[in-house]
Amino acid sequence: MNPELHRLIQSIQPADEDAMRAARARQGQLTKPPGALGALEDLSVRLAGAFGTPTPHPQGVTVIVAAGDHGVVSEGVSAFPPEVTPAMVANFLADTPAGPGGAAVNALARTLGAQVLVADVGVNADLPAHPRLHALKIRRGTRNLRAEAAMTREETEAAILAGARLAAQAMEGGADVLIPGEMGIGNTTPAAALTARLLNVPARAVTGRGTGVTDDTLERKVRVIEAALARGGSDPADPLGVLADLGGLEIAFMLGVMLQAAGARCVIILDGFVEGSAALVGVALQPHLRAYLFPAGECAEVGHAAQLAHLGLTPMFHLGLRLGEGTGGVLAAPLLLGAAATLREMQTFAEAGVPGAP
Amino acid sequence: MNPELHRLIQSIQPADEDAMRAARARQGQLTKPPGALGALEDLSVRLAGAFGTPTPHPQGVTVIVAAGDHGVVSEGVSAFPPEVTPAMVANFLADTPAGPGGAAVNALARTLGAQVLVADVGVNADLPAHPRLHALKIRRGTRNLRAEAAMTREETEAAILAGARLAAQAMEGGADVLIPGEMGIGNTTPAAALTARLLNVPARAVTGRGTGVTDDTLERKVRVIEAALARGGSDPADPLGVLADLGGLEIAFMLGVMLQAAGARCVIILDGFVEGSAALVGVALQPHLRAYLFPAGECAEVGHAAQLAHLGLTPMFHLGLRLGEGTGGVLAAPLLLGAAATLREMQTFAEAGVPGAP
Repeated sequence: MNPELHRLIQSIQPADEDAMRAARARQGQLTKPPGALGALEDLSVRLAGAFGTPTPHPQGVTVIVAAGDHGVVSEGVSAFPPEVTPAMVANFLADTPAGPGGAAVNALARTLGAQVLVADVGVNADLPAHPRLHALKIRRGTRNLRAEAAMTREETEAAILAGARLAAQAMEGGADVLIPGEMGIGNTTPAAALTARLLNVPARAVTGRGTGVTDDTLERKVRVIEAALARGGSDPADPLGVLADLGGLEIAFMLGVMLQAAGARCVIILDGFVEGSAALVGVALQPHLRAYLFPAGECAEVGHAAQLAHLGLTPMFHLGLRLGEGTGGVLAAPLLLGAAATLREMQTFAEAGVPGAP
Repeated sequence: MNPELHRLIQSIQPADEDAMRAARARQGQLTKPPGALGALEDLSVRLAGAFGTPTPHPQGVTVIVAAGDHGVVSEGVSAFPPEVTPAMVANFLADTPAGPGGAAVNALARTLGAQVLVADVGVNADLPAHPRLHALKIRRGTRNLRAEAAMTREETEAAILAGARLAAQAMEGGADVLIPGEMGIGNTTPAAALTARLLNVPARAVTGRGTGVTDDTLERKVRVIEAALARGGSDPADPLGVLADLGGLEIAFMLGVMLQAAGARCVIILDGFVEGSAALVGVALQPHLRAYLFPAGECAEVGHAAQLAHLGLTPMFHLGLRLGEGTGGVLAAPLLLGAAATLREMQTFAEAGVPGAP
């Protein structure tokens, strides 16, 4: 393994149990009936564990949208043509009357004042230079994972490190809540293949309709993934090998974002199914990563629930999103900032002079 | 009925069907697979209907926390002593290192830059004057609803109009997303009584643990509500009569906030069970009110689900909150602002030059 990557994986520390204990105790003293903030209380305790303080103060919400193409689209697994990937990158960067970016993630991020960084990791087109585009292309799309490994191990590690470096740059600029997002026509196919292999479940159980394919296309997609798994090109005991074999460049890049964020004790909001597949690889490489992962909603893609169950994480909402781009992550960010704020800013019964239960 | 209240109720218009149709059509042209934003798409269409424009721009999130006490606490229906009501009002107003207010709603509202207004509508104590306290007391607590009507009809109408006037003042200052919240030890008892009568269901089916009462207290609370209903002091055909008979001053006040907001085509985020009981009265008075109501999460209090089912509204999340104060509403506000932003700020496939599905 690339030594920089090895160091990054080793740098991730477990959750701070002392901070979590102190946060849990403090939640019990705040001016509200015990447990009345429901899931927000557990969320606040997990944030304390990740940030390593009983009073975490996350405030730099930053989305990093990674774009990449997929050789497997030649098998006809998507409802949309691959030309959509570069067109959507242009949309993420467009100047619109409302501000930079005309995609869902841009509109949602503006409501929070959150930053959106856009990276080309593997788009199968020569994108024009743009001041807001991070041009980090490893190659023009992956190989067709039905027939051969999607990426070499070197390409995979390079994509991970590119994600790690952009995350490091964002954190230097104040980011402390990182939302990896993706755009890549066809990418629920590698995500399902990764999930099937790492969870050791049949392809059919975790393969969904992505952008909305028909019954026939879904059936073809399942058979393509079955064929990819049947090649036997990787072993779950070697997570990076699985990622190279069945993954995607933007998936590897998002993994790099997650590892770098966790290594710096910042938190990651997990959007949907494709992000989840990167997280599965990450937790297989370094189980401590789990402490830094905060799932947004359960997305509508079949297989996402299995990912979250495997990771032992409870989603914050069930809005039936299936867009990616980091959109669910942006919607979940205020819940996370709110949970931390209760811990940090609410007065205790003693401080407020409020009588408690008899 | 008081003529001012009558005019207010009559002023509420149905949802703007044209705006909703245009919003629905626009959602289908935005740069995402159709339906990929899940529940956010329906939310955006309802916002269009409420605000009366296909591109709504809500931005003034304002919580109005109403405090009141309840004569029925003498029956021993709450886990907390009634002294908590004035102490929590002081907490809402406290100067803390983080800013004004040390309660959960203050901490959460600060993360959004949302305003929190605090009103004394019926606290059973003489509260000291405070520049941020709206002193609108109708009387010191309600009567014991087990034995007699909680309020006279005049007190009820006065509390509603007080809420309406404070909402009008807030909207003059830019509020367009109003979150009625409450603080009142014992107030899940009137809320359950109102819900049982207006939904015509047994008290037991909609009576929960409030701030966290024991089994014995819960049993007593059910019997108190059964006794109140057995008095036969009101008829569901007369919703204001039901509110006077079984309600609370802060519940009436929140109803006034809702009516005034809807009359001005602004929207209301419904927090929990007590807010829901005010909404039930409101929709019974004026069915058009429903178009302006946006439920936050399903709260942990038994009976909230029945309220939402009766109102035909789907909650945005299930975080198990049971605090009130408007906390759930504040947490839901970004979802609502986000839904509107997608409609307003995303580019269409044509505008962005993105190829659609074949």
